[in-house]
Amino acid sequence: MILGFDADDTLWHNEDGFQASHREFEQLLAEWADPETIDDQLFTIESRNLPRYGYGVKAYTLSMIECAIAVSGGQIGADAISTMLDLGHALLDRPIELLDGVEEVLDELGRHQLMIITKGDLYHQLLRIENSGLQHRFWQSEVVAHKDPSTYQRVLKLHGVAPEEFVMVGNSVPSDVLPVLAVGGRAVHIPYHVTWTHERHDGDHGAPTLNNMRELPDLLSDWGLH
Amino acid sequence: MILGFDADDTLWHNEDGFQASHREFEQLLAEWADPETIDDQLFTIESRNLPRYGYGVKAYTLSMIECAIAVSGGQIGADAISTMLDLGHALLDRPIELLDGVEEVLDELGRHQLMIITKGDLYHQLLRIENSGLQHRFWQSEVVAHKDPSTYQRVLKLHGVAPEEFVMVGNSVPSDVLPVLAVGGRAVHIPYHVTWTHERHDGDHGAPTLNNMRELPDLLSDWGLH
Repeated sequence: MILGFDADDTLWHNEDGFQASHREFEQLLAEWADPETIDDQLFTIESRNLPRYGYGVKAYTLSMIECAIAVSGGQIGADAISTMLDLGHALLDRPIELLDGVEEVLDELGRHQLMIITKGDLYHQLLRIENSGLQHRFWQSEVVAHKDPSTYQRVLKLHGVAPEEFVMVGNSVPSDVLPVLAVGGRAVHIPYHVTWTHERHDGDHGAPTLNNMRELPDLLSDWGLH
Repeated sequence: MILGFDADDTLWHNEDGFQASHREFEQLLAEWADPETIDDQLFTIESRNLPRYGYGVKAYTLSMIECAIAVSGGQIGADAISTMLDLGHALLDRPIELLDGVEEVLDELGRHQLMIITKGDLYHQLLRIENSGLQHRFWQSEVVAHKDPSTYQRVLKLHGVAPEEFVMVGNSVPSDVLPVLAVGGRAVHIPYHVTWTHERHDGDHGAPTLNNMRELPDLLSDWGLH
């Protein structure tokens, strides 16, 4: 069996940093709009920029600046924009904090071939994998631009992995669960305590949901895979 | 033989767009500094940000905004920053213009296995490969975060290519020539008419230099490879 792991919010904390940063962003714009208006505007701008920016901190920082100019009617000052650049730098420079149980469970699963399959900014994700101290535990690490069925098919084929021997573990239903089920693999959903608006998914998805990474080995045993 | 091609400034125009954008950036800051001061400051800021941002248009746009705030002593207005965001969008949305001779030469070399190996923003580079109309001519496309010897080794190994049967074609001496020679492959240098400051290289590099992609098939014939 080959086990694929998402990285952000599956192996290490990520979205909580974005949300803390977002609270500071709301403060910077407090004289022009309430948090709800700011959130709506940022969501609209991020969605519009997604086809050209893709995902990641740089995309987020640029959309924040565009949103600040729009919400303030062009009144936002250079100091506040400088603070937004600093918020982006802080997210990029943030030290890796592993989620509870990750190291122990990777140790326990070490006799399987483990892969990281993560979406986002290539440069930043490789840096984080390197800084996580986990790199040597993984057989392969793939940073992809999209987590859609054709990307999973390409990555599995490239590494000679048959979908029926592949299990993907991740916190995002649209990115880590649904496209893997669609190509004939298995998926395990381990929600993170907060979810980015663009990754939210309601409704049943047909994969088991765990509370914590520590529950993974037992599930794999139940499946006869561990 | 496996032929690797760089993309930006080797298959299609890129740096000329950055340079045109840079002239507009200088105009926006003209009341605070002369072009030389602006260039020096931008170079310093881009170099400082490189370890966290990597390469690409989003990194460039963020460094431009940081530079504008610094050069203007915090006096730059939201309108000008909005124009910088637009300059970034225009670079990202720019239609692909192939370099002279590229299509004909790829046609002629079509019986070899052709690869794209390009550095930069994963999302944007994949979009450009797709929009170039050239994708079907390439056996593989790889977007990498660094063009160093270990990256070339990893990519060649992943696709089962021996270095001695690999030839890399590109416009950048530090990215496309030196690291490929270092891992035992062959390289062909085809300079673009302008070179980004961070990719400049003086001195002999030991690989043949061509004036134009159209000269490539004859060189490969001379090497007994075509």
